[in-house]
Amino acid sequence: MIRTIEWTDQGVVMIDQRLLPAQEIYQNCQTYEQVAEAIRTMVIRGAPAIGVAAAMGVALGVRNLSAASGQELDARVDAICDALSKTRPTAVNLFWAIERMRRAYRACRHLRLPEIQEALRKEAIGIYREDIEINQRIGSHGQALLPDQATVLTHCNAGALATAGFGTALGVIRAAVNAGKSIHVLADETRPFLQGARLTAWELMKDRIPVTLITDNMAGHIMKTDRVQAVIVGADRIAANGDVANKIGTYSVAILARAHGIPFYVAAPMSTIDFGTPSGEAIPIEERNMSEVLELQGRRIAPDSVEARNPAFDVTPAEYVSAIITERGIARFPYSASLRALAEMNVETAQ
Amino acid sequence: MIRTIEWTDQGVVMIDQRLLPAQEIYQNCQTYEQVAEAIRTMVIRGAPAIGVAAAMGVALGVRNLSAASGQELDARVDAICDALSKTRPTAVNLFWAIERMRRAYRACRHLRLPEIQEALRKEAIGIYREDIEINQRIGSHGQALLPDQATVLTHCNAGALATAGFGTALGVIRAAVNAGKSIHVLADETRPFLQGARLTAWELMKDRIPVTLITDNMAGHIMKTDRVQAVIVGADRIAANGDVANKIGTYSVAILARAHGIPFYVAAPMSTIDFGTPSGEAIPIEERNMSEVLELQGRRIAPDSVEARNPAFDVTPAEYVSAIITERGIARFPYSASLRALAEMNVETAQ
Repeated sequence: MIRTIEWTDQGVVMIDQRLLPAQEIYQNCQTYEQVAEAIRTMVIRGAPAIGVAAAMGVALGVRNLSAASGQELDARVDAICDALSKTRPTAVNLFWAIERMRRAYRACRHLRLPEIQEALRKEAIGIYREDIEINQRIGSHGQALLPDQATVLTHCNAGALATAGFGTALGVIRAAVNAGKSIHVLADETRPFLQGARLTAWELMKDRIPVTLITDNMAGHIMKTDRVQAVIVGADRIAANGDVANKIGTYSVAILARAHGIPFYVAAPMSTIDFGTPSGEAIPIEERNMSEVLELQGRRIAPDSVEARNPAFDVTPAEYVSAIITERGIARFPYSASLRALAEMNVETAQ
Repeated sequence: MIRTIEWTDQGVVMIDQRLLPAQEIYQNCQTYEQVAEAIRTMVIRGAPAIGVAAAMGVALGVRNLSAASGQELDARVDAICDALSKTRPTAVNLFWAIERMRRAYRACRHLRLPEIQEALRKEAIGIYREDIEINQRIGSHGQALLPDQATVLTHCNAGALATAGFGTALGVIRAAVNAGKSIHVLADETRPFLQGARLTAWELMKDRIPVTLITDNMAGHIMKTDRVQAVIVGADRIAANGDVANKIGTYSVAILARAHGIPFYVAAPMSTIDFGTPSGEAIPIEERNMSEVLELQGRRIAPDSVEARNPAFDVTPAEYVSAIITERGIARFPYSASLRALAEMNVETAQ
């Protein structure tokens, strides 16, 4: 059982994903500022996981407040939410989770501070628990798309480490394995942060799911010369038309999958769909510090003073996406209609 | 002036490309076995450069022989050539250069040993000098394909370090710059060996040609969101039908270029064209040790005992190649005819 993030009486505890797999070190954040810094520096990453972290960050920030007048409290909660909102721009789950915490606060702001603190703690833990359930439902919907004896390529890490647990893309793979299918995973190493080499490989090996690591630039060659039955990835934000922002390199993999007739699946919770963003062009793409490209685990790999680019995400146009797998079911192109239908679904029926 | 490889009275001197750009260390090979080991371990790499190295290796091996009977000498030269042939399987220039040294030996084997040694030394130095001239001619043919104010993406290193000097793909870029054009180079870092980050960036910075480094998985995103006017790469072996074996990842870049309407050019000497290999399917693809993927500069980046693939090359089908630029001119699809026409060209006319 991988513990990505946990609420404890001592603070919000996260496994430091920058140090995996060499070291399993847990960081204990005792202030919301420390949670914000952990999100910014990628101690924790993955759209659903940073949503959970932000929610716990809000609850932690409020827990640390002393008694204040109602107006003062409003301003302080706003400041906490704003600080956590400014950590990373692309994954919409961050904003979704913070907005949910704001709503929870508004619903209880008339109560005494200890009650507010308890309500927000419960809301954050609720988001955490729901995320695991959602991933299990994504898995059971999605596993039907994977044939037995399949080789499935994935990019980055959309596993337990990217979520509260179980994973989105890797959740689908886990569910297929749990259903008795034999699945072999090809993991793109995913430069520059190496989520594939460090996190996906580590997670799958813990679960004894066969995994073969490749460099990102091998995907096309392997698709051409070996059998690859499916590609499955997570998402950081899905626009209303089905355009998918995800880890840099996802777009290239989607084009390669199309060129080889391989289905390209995206697995994500409904909270990753941003109906307020009409298409991928409107999704802000974070450009991170170029040192992440120029150095590898602190070691310089390129000449001094060379320029580099470091967009952390890219956008895959909806027409390259064979299906979007959510906890409410599977959406197909055209996504404007199918995603909207999932959003408007009677959830009790869907489950 | 970058000195990739040099014949000296003390031995064959090569810059150790595994250590660049952090250290500029020259290795002096005093036996043909040391040359073979330098090729195998990628102290020197790049199809034309390993051709030159192999030729110098043969000359060095023969230089170190003591007087022997004609039959004994034949066997020893064979053994030297065989050992150098077994270093790397994909780049055909290696076999081409060794075959040329065998022919040179056959033409002088009736002479006294010192004369044979001198003839082979001259042949190897001839191959070295010709390679630089060939690259300059490739450059002057190819530069016409690059517009002014262009951003040109390249993969791996097909520069001075991959040849005796000037380079093939980077030779075309150098020639365009020399012709007064403003060229900005996007260099794929090229995992696992990082030829782009370590060698292409280093070479271009020495020449003050603007270069921006990207990870391999950024190429698609940059092609979609920025202006990229051309892709240009080298080649390790070109089949008679124009299929191109080159560094792993080249095939993915070719598919991405096609998807974005960007021309994809291959620059290589005629000696890279293997008319004995009908199509890319017949080109042997070297699979190197998986430690190159699992470690980076000696540091482990993946979990212990995870499996990895490490194909060092891939094959880009001819239909993805917009043009093949050689020292005799530019070939276009269908390549079976156009490459054959270049091979049968009256070379004096061509030059």
